[in-house]
Formats: sequence, structure tokens, C-alpha cells
Amino acid sequence: MESQAARLGEILKRQGLTLAVAESCTGGLLGGCVTASAGSSSYFRGGVIAYDNDIKRDVLGVSAENLEKHGAVSGPVVCEMAAGAAKLLGCGCAASVSGIAGPGGGSGEKPVGLVFIGVYCRGQTDSRSFVFDGNRDEVRAQSVAAALDFLIETVNSTADTPQ
Amino acid sequence: MESQAARLGEILKRQGLTLAVAESCTGGLLGGCVTASAGSSSYFRGGVIAYDNDIKRDVLGVSAENLEKHGAVSGPVVCEMAAGAAKLLGCGCAASVSGIAGPGGGSGEKPVGLVFIGVYCRGQTDSRSFVFDGNRDEVRAQSVAAALDFLIETVNSTADTPQ
Repeated sequence: MESQAARLGEILKRQGLTLAVAESCTGGLLGGCVTASAGSSSYFRGGVIAYDNDIKRDVLGVSAENLEKHGAVSGPVVCEMAAGAAKLLGCGCAASVSGIAGPGGGSGEKPVGLVFIGVYCRGQTDSRSFVFDGNRDEVRAQSVAAALDFLIETVNSTADTPQ
Repeated sequence: MESQAARLGEILKRQGLTLAVAESCTGGLLGGCVTASAGSSSYFRGGVIAYDNDIKRDVLGVSAENLEKHGAVSGPVVCEMAAGAAKLLGCGCAASVSGIAGPGGGSGEKPVGLVFIGVYCRGQTDSRSFVFDGNRDEVRAQSVAAALDFLIETVNSTADTPQ
């Protein structure tokens, strides 16, 4: 995972992009992984750990309507989290994570292991959902890896988009 | 370290305190460790990963004067980071970390391994400094453990302070 983070760092540096994170269920692990690379301060500015929904709303600017209508673990909310983090921290791209790491908190509609990841890059946002197997630690680790992959793909695929 | 975080969680719950973090060199690892405990949402609200000094100033409210005069890796700055995180996230206590994890960035006055940790609890702030041995990963892991210890001590020692 740390080599994936280092690879992301190289791509961000090459493209002159800065990165922010907005984390719920991973609680800071994505930022922790990105900053495992020495020199990450040249592209990583910081992030918001928005574990409580109030923080998602009040600090990241997630709409109360989306939290109410779709729930914190949803595509619309992770898109707003990523865009909010990029705006707050003044970054060209951002990734967000919100999910149910377990062991509690799951439901029929939203089982343990369900994780949404959002990416904001150069003015656009997109989200993906996953259902990961494993315990709490494993769900969180897979979430970090998926966020890094999603960031790498998005940053690469939007490289020709004017900023 | 995760058992230390779980122990902190039990103490916070017993005392009805909520926790925020403000992280520079640990990049989110302290929040990641706190949220390794299932049920941490009952006391942990979130945090700010303030890797860039602009984030320390603009999001956490650290004074430009302290950043200029003492540097980001200093007692006054970690105190302001902790108090700023507690205020922004509406928490009764907060811990902050700022240090030189290496391998670069050290100087004669501030060597690699120098880490300041701040704790805000019930209206008061305090800081401690450490010089940790080891590589980047080891310095960051020791920083997380020291922050958890400092939090546990402070929360316990201020238990009779009126809130």
C-alpha cells in the first residue's frame, strides 16, 4: 500500500497537483499512508477526519439533505466530502472514504464492509462503492488501497483536462 | 498501541469527554489508531491533518507569529493546534502532533526524531517534546503512542476539574 502511495505521489508531483483527504471510517489511515512517503509534503496538504456527521456537515460542507436522504455511507456524501476537502484545503484533488467497517453498524441495505470512496479532481467528482470482506482492520486497509487506486486512475485519466 | 487507544476510549467514555486530533508528521495515524476501536464514534469526533503550515494557520487557527517565531515543530504551535482542533470540532479534549519524522528536514537545533505533542483538555493546554530514535515509520509510531499516553495522563489528572 505504501508503494501505491509513493506511486500516487510521483504522479501528483509530475502533474503539479496537490492532494487532500476526507476520512470517516478509515479515521486518518489514508492520510497516514500517503505521508508514509518522505517528501509527501510537496503534494499532500492535509485533510479532515470527519468521523462524526456534524463534522462532515459543518467542516466539509456536506449538505444536511444528502446526509438525511442518502445517509453518511453513500455516493452523494463522499462526493461532497471530497469536494469540500479540496475546497477547504485549497487542493487540486481529494479523496474521501465513508463506510461501515464493523463489527457493528451494518443493516440489510448497508452491510458491514460497504464502503463508498469519492474522488475530486480538477473540478469533477466521482464515487465508487465496494463491499469488502474481513474484519474491521481488513475493511479499513482495503478502503485505503481502493482510495489510492481510484486517485491514481482519476488523476491519470484527467491529465489532459485543462485546470 | 491499539490497546492503549482502547484504554483511552474507556476513560473518555467514563468521563463524558469527546476527542479531536490535529496531526502534522503523523499524517492521520493517531486518528487511525483511535478509530481502530469499534465503538470509538461515541467519543471520537474527528480531526484535522494539518500537514502544510497554511492548514495549521487557516483551518486550526495557529498564529502566523508562533509559526514564524518558534517554527511548526514547537510547543506553542502544538498547543494552538490542539486548542484549535478542540474548538473547530467542538470537543472537550484534543491531541496534536508536529515533528520531524525524517529522513530529511532535520537541523542542529531541530534534529530528525524531534516531536512535540500538545494536549488540550477542559480549557487548558500543555505540550511535551521528545527525540525519538529510529526511521520515519518508527518515529511516527512512537509519536502516536506518546500522544495516547499524554492524553490518558491528562484526562485522568484533570478529572476533578469542573468543566
